[in-house]
Amino acid sequence: MNNPQLNKHGELQHLLTIEGLPVRILRDILDHAATFLDATEKHEIRKLPLLQGKSIFNVFFEDSTRTRTTFEIAAKRLSADVVNLNIGSSSTSKGETLLDTVDNLCAMHADMFVVRHSSSGAAHLIARHVAPNIHVINAGDGRHAHPTQALLDMYTIRHYKKEFHNLRVAIVGDILHSRVARSQIHALTTLGVPEVRVIAPKTLLPSMVENLGVRVFHDMAEGLKDVDVVLMLRLQNERMQGGSLPSEQEYFKDYGLTEAKLAYAKSDAIVMHPGPMNRGIEIESSVADGPQSVILSQVTFGIAVRMAVMSMLAGNK
Amino acid sequence: MNNPQLNKHGELQHLLTIEGLPVRILRDILDHAATFLDATEKHEIRKLPLLQGKSIFNVFFEDSTRTRTTFEIAAKRLSADVVNLNIGSSSTSKGETLLDTVDNLCAMHADMFVVRHSSSGAAHLIARHVAPNIHVINAGDGRHAHPTQALLDMYTIRHYKKEFHNLRVAIVGDILHSRVARSQIHALTTLGVPEVRVIAPKTLLPSMVENLGVRVFHDMAEGLKDVDVVLMLRLQNERMQGGSLPSEQEYFKDYGLTEAKLAYAKSDAIVMHPGPMNRGIEIESSVADGPQSVILSQVTFGIAVRMAVMSMLAGNK
Amino acid sequence: MNNPQLNKHGELQHLLTIEGLPVRILRDILDHAATFLDATEKHEIRKLPLLQGKSIFNVFFEDSTRTRTTFEIAAKRLSADVVNLNIGSSSTSKGETLLDTVDNLCAMHADMFVVRHSSSGAAHLIARHVAPNIHVINAGDGRHAHPTQALLDMYTIRHYKKEFHNLRVAIVGDILHSRVARSQIHALTTLGVPEVRVIAPKTLLPSMVENLGVRVFHDMAEGLKDVDVVLMLRLQNERMQGGSLPSEQEYFKDYGLTEAKLAYAKSDAIVMHPGPMNRGIEIESSVADGPQSVILSQVTFGIAVRMAVMSMLAGNK
Repeated sequence: MNNPQLNKHGELQHLLTIEGLPVRILRDILDHAATFLDATEKHEIRKLPLLQGKSIFNVFFEDSTRTRTTFEIAAKRLSADVVNLNIGSSSTSKGETLLDTVDNLCAMHADMFVVRHSSSGAAHLIARHVAPNIHVINAGDGRHAHPTQALLDMYTIRHYKKEFHNLRVAIVGDILHSRVARSQIHALTTLGVPEVRVIAPKTLLPSMVENLGVRVFHDMAEGLKDVDVVLMLRLQNERMQGGSLPSEQEYFKDYGLTEAKLAYAKSDAIVMHPGPMNRGIEIESSVADGPQSVILSQVTFGIAVRMAVMSMLAGNK
Repeated sequence: MNNPQLNKHGELQHLLTIEGLPVRILRDILDHAATFLDATEKHEIRKLPLLQGKSIFNVFFEDSTRTRTTFEIAAKRLSADVVNLNIGSSSTSKGETLLDTVDNLCAMHADMFVVRHSSSGAAHLIARHVAPNIHVINAGDGRHAHPTQALLDMYTIRHYKKEFHNLRVAIVGDILHSRVARSQIHALTTLGVPEVRVIAPKTLLPSMVENLGVRVFHDMAEGLKDVDVVLMLRLQNERMQGGSLPSEQEYFKDYGLTEAKLAYAKSDAIVMHPGPMNRGIEIESSVADGPQSVILSQVTFGIAVRMAVMSMLAGNK
Repeated sequence: MNNPQLNKHGELQHLLTIEGLPVRILRDILDHAATFLDATEKHEIRKLPLLQGKSIFNVFFEDSTRTRTTFEIAAKRLSADVVNLNIGSSSTSKGETLLDTVDNLCAMHADMFVVRHSSSGAAHLIARHVAPNIHVINAGDGRHAHPTQALLDMYTIRHYKKEFHNLRVAIVGDILHSRVARSQIHALTTLGVPEVRVIAPKTLLPSMVENLGVRVFHDMAEGLKDVDVVLMLRLQNERMQGGSLPSEQEYFKDYGLTEAKLAYAKSDAIVMHPGPMNRGIEIESSVADGPQSVILSQVTFGIAVRMAVMSMLAGNK
């Protein structure tokens, strides 16, 4: 079976989605990230020459300052030249097709694209199109995938829990519309987590979600019972207004992570959130800022994971 | 008394406002700036490695290309990595709080924030919140403070007048709404200027302005008489439309700096303006471009002053 | 005759328009570009220290992500510090004049301006205004000139056809509103192309176009007959809506470049387009992506040409 993410040597060629990534690649990324984190935190090495002279294009067809910033920082710490392109308002509005834009940037000797697009599959389309010496990282496409977020989540879990094979992990919130949840589920099961749970109201669950290998809960008390890791999802404000949910207050009452609900989990359970948080809707501030929260560590690890992915891609032809 | 701008060794930890800065710190900044200016102009050294590997975030909650550019250039000339964040249209609109945004950037190993915000006190709030190895520069908050502007003004005055203790300085224009005027008054009095005057119509003066230690004038002929330095302020267009002023023509007649009015000042008086200028409203073009104008020198000195502040902060823990 | 683009030694001081550039300067730029392309492609040297410590300002008074990106990449590959200024929404809206903005940036020790403006002559105005050690590149002003585009077109023609003196070149499309066509015609005739043709409906031709030394055709079969080079122009969508053209379908039928029409040209004719392309309006996809298309090579050569111009300017005082 042909995997567009791997080259003929089985090395990472593009990072498009967690689906189909062999476990050895996942572990390799996490190991690389650990060395970058060590360099930064133990040895105070903040800038490495690994991508010197390389041109990385942050091609954002939808705006996301937060995500763009994390990739920009990672690339600059690897000494790459970074060019930010907010395409939403540019060439494509002049009638140029997505692939014409990409062809143009390739002709400028691009080495790597970080792509954000509102359509599922946009990053795949680009990856299939470009020459073998050019690499594509999916920074979020539609509801589909957001693989670096899932990878930094895995890094965070491994950092705090050491192993995956003995964990019970719950994902809470809007599974249906989340770019992140699907990637998380794939990563967790690939890395050997024996029990992945999803906790959500029926209106925020995709049909046939059980087929992804998860246990489904509609109640926080049951779903959080004895878990090691709680992965909160962000509730899109748009959903609230769309009428698929009753009200913020009611959602918080049922699915917001409070200290009381967190008490159902193991006493050393960690709490994660991809950010930005809606305090008082998905999560209570005392939990977000509390001793079990590792939410800011996720951000720190996210830079290291993105550096790892970029440097691995740049080394593979 | 606890000064949030100084660390326990009495060194500059954040630059938030001129208020409360000891005179030795003010002089230290001006001296540092002079060495940077020498490096640039005498030795043609345009890039120094002092902030290599450091990550500086220009976090602008309100748009100001001009101010952002001066900090971006200063940081790049010190070899820092600079990331521009125009937050107005980003995360905070997703419901994230100001401090969550800051926490996230800190978790990405930010070293310094340059903050612009429409609310007074935003930079202080951030400075109180961050870890001791992270530094905050206020690039303008509400009507409150804009300390690097005041510092470059002081640099300019010292450059042309050598000493502060024998000067008569007039600040002209919209004192009430100016981010700059309050910072200027504090800096001038701290550095020992014996006579600071403000010249404005009553509607553009804060109540109790005399308490800041200034002499108040409503007439240019009296107020400019025998001054050494004329600091013009920018008139916000919004004020004109707001009805607090009669008309641009009338304002210019009464308070616009013309050659005729400038003749009341000393013959070697210098004319300053923070820019951008409204020619024909605050200032006549022949004065703005005339022999007594040092307005473009202010811009040059402003880069050196920002380099000085950044490099001093980066050296202090 | 005084040429604002040359300094007193006859070296390139600014690049404003192809008009009036001596043929030796044109050839010099193309030769320099060839060495940069060699460095990149043969020796895999992606970054050169030629503009280290220099500050280049991309001052865009109208938005053009595509053009800005090409200059940004060229400058970064020469190790310059690049600052992007999208002025449309900034200082000038605060009532500052164009030249005040430029004076401010000069006072920050700018070395080079890349200027895009909707008004013809804006780059000339700036070039006349700045000090002799500051250089201006016109990145497009009104309908007037876009000289780096014409230069990269010349580079492309020389690359594929070796010589200019034996060529028949046709320019097809909206000559009237094109920033590019006028620059192309000047460059082609200066470099010794004996026959330059323009092919367009009467409504898209400037009056007296023959005075530029071109042959005018209104029919593709006649105009393309036996040409060596086909330069397609971009059709501005605005024109279609403005009523100066009947419909996209009709335009494509008469002037769109199809395989059938291209067959009138020489069998080894090359097809060029400045991008972004309107596929199915100016050009058929099978031609755009076909064996005679050199459209993506133009983009690659465009980076080398911009590096050449920047490094030549930086060396001349």
